[in-house]
Amino acid sequence: MMKLYFGPGACSFVPHVGIEAIKAATGEEIETQTVKLHKGEQQTPEYLALNPLGQVPLLVVDGKPLNQIVAICDYLDRRFPQAGLLPADSWQRAQAMSLFAWMNNTVHPTFTHIFRPSKFATGEAAQADVKSTAVAAFRECLERIQKRAQEAGPFLLGDKLSFVDAYALTFLRWGGLGGIDPASLPGYQAYVARVAAQPAVAAAMAREGINLDTYKAK
Amino acid sequence: MMKLYFGPGACSFVPHVGIEAIKAATGEEIETQTVKLHKGEQQTPEYLALNPLGQVPLLVVDGKPLNQIVAICDYLDRRFPQAGLLPADSWQRAQAMSLFAWMNNTVHPTFTHIFRPSKFATGEAAQADVKSTAVAAFRECLERIQKRAQEAGPFLLGDKLSFVDAYALTFLRWGGLGGIDPASLPGYQAYVARVAAQPAVAAAMAREGINLDTYKAK
Repeated sequence: MMKLYFGPGACSFVPHVGIEAIKAATGEEIETQTVKLHKGEQQTPEYLALNPLGQVPLLVVDGKPLNQIVAICDYLDRRFPQAGLLPADSWQRAQAMSLFAWMNNTVHPTFTHIFRPSKFATGEAAQADVKSTAVAAFRECLERIQKRAQEAGPFLLGDKLSFVDAYALTFLRWGGLGGIDPASLPGYQAYVARVAAQPAVAAAMAREGINLDTYKAK
Repeated sequence: MMKLYFGPGACSFVPHVGIEAIKAATGEEIETQTVKLHKGEQQTPEYLALNPLGQVPLLVVDGKPLNQIVAICDYLDRRFPQAGLLPADSWQRAQAMSLFAWMNNTVHPTFTHIFRPSKFATGEAAQADVKSTAVAAFRECLERIQKRAQEAGPFLLGDKLSFVDAYALTFLRWGGLGGIDPASLPGYQAYVARVAAQPAVAAAMAREGINLDTYKAK
């Protein structure tokens, strides 16, 4: 018995797409549970008992918790290789893990500086500085992803949809919230439109109630 | 033909310990190449051609580059499972990857704020704020690792030395450089002394020319 806890629009979208792809490929239904992050449901005693870091995603397998996107996705891929969410070839898989790790240790934390600068500095002016510095760094990350998407295609790893595509879609959505106009990254936007049209991605977006249109022009 | 590029004292210590453990377990010799980070050798055109991010570690396999600690270690473990650098059991392995990912996306980037605050803010006062905020956050991370080391033992995953132990040793060394007295974390210090006494760890430390004594009392 498996259950994935996710927060709509959060990075938990990455394994969420994974379980939709697994259902399509194998028929295996993994339960889902919404965690309302804006209501602080990730900070309840029950949730903290499963994940002391108070974060999503969380995968519970036979009552036991597993945290961290990379670990959850690696586990799902090993358990359901038929879904093809990471390459089967060992060198291609290593390259996929390299991209996935960079997204997880660089791109994602860079956005955290935009979304929650108070984690990184105490003063108000310092927080504004952290935020604007991070917006520039985040744009550089998105440009790097755009370049890869244009060199590869239709998806980041080539022909097959993978976890990294779900992460890339999430970053463009987050960029919009951080004031980065997706239209300023046309190659990225076209790539994400392809990703969003995939049935597993569309199903996860529908369940989370999210869309690609996060940017508000000033 | 494989070759690992490492910077003495950097996070590349993690796969460096791995290749020493692989040599001991299998006899396979993986070449090593020092990258003098203080001399900017990671920014030469030759190096950037292999790793456009200008970072260590880098593993070159038959002339092809692989970046990112987590990807390199996962690859080495899959290629040399006899070395036992990650657990063989799938659930235990998932838990190990979870800890490894947290170290890589949270603990390690937190230290980057101490070591290079100019990456995260432009103003001088803001950078000082970023640095002091990160010192407090890094100490919290070390306390979390200390707790796990005390609950588990002798190593973080139990009986066997793993990549995560090499990472944990690196963090305590970095903490010393950032002004955190290791004697203020006695459980962590005792655990790291056990790790450092392991032959693979001692061999990698000797080749890098590093020791545990990084803290200077003010």
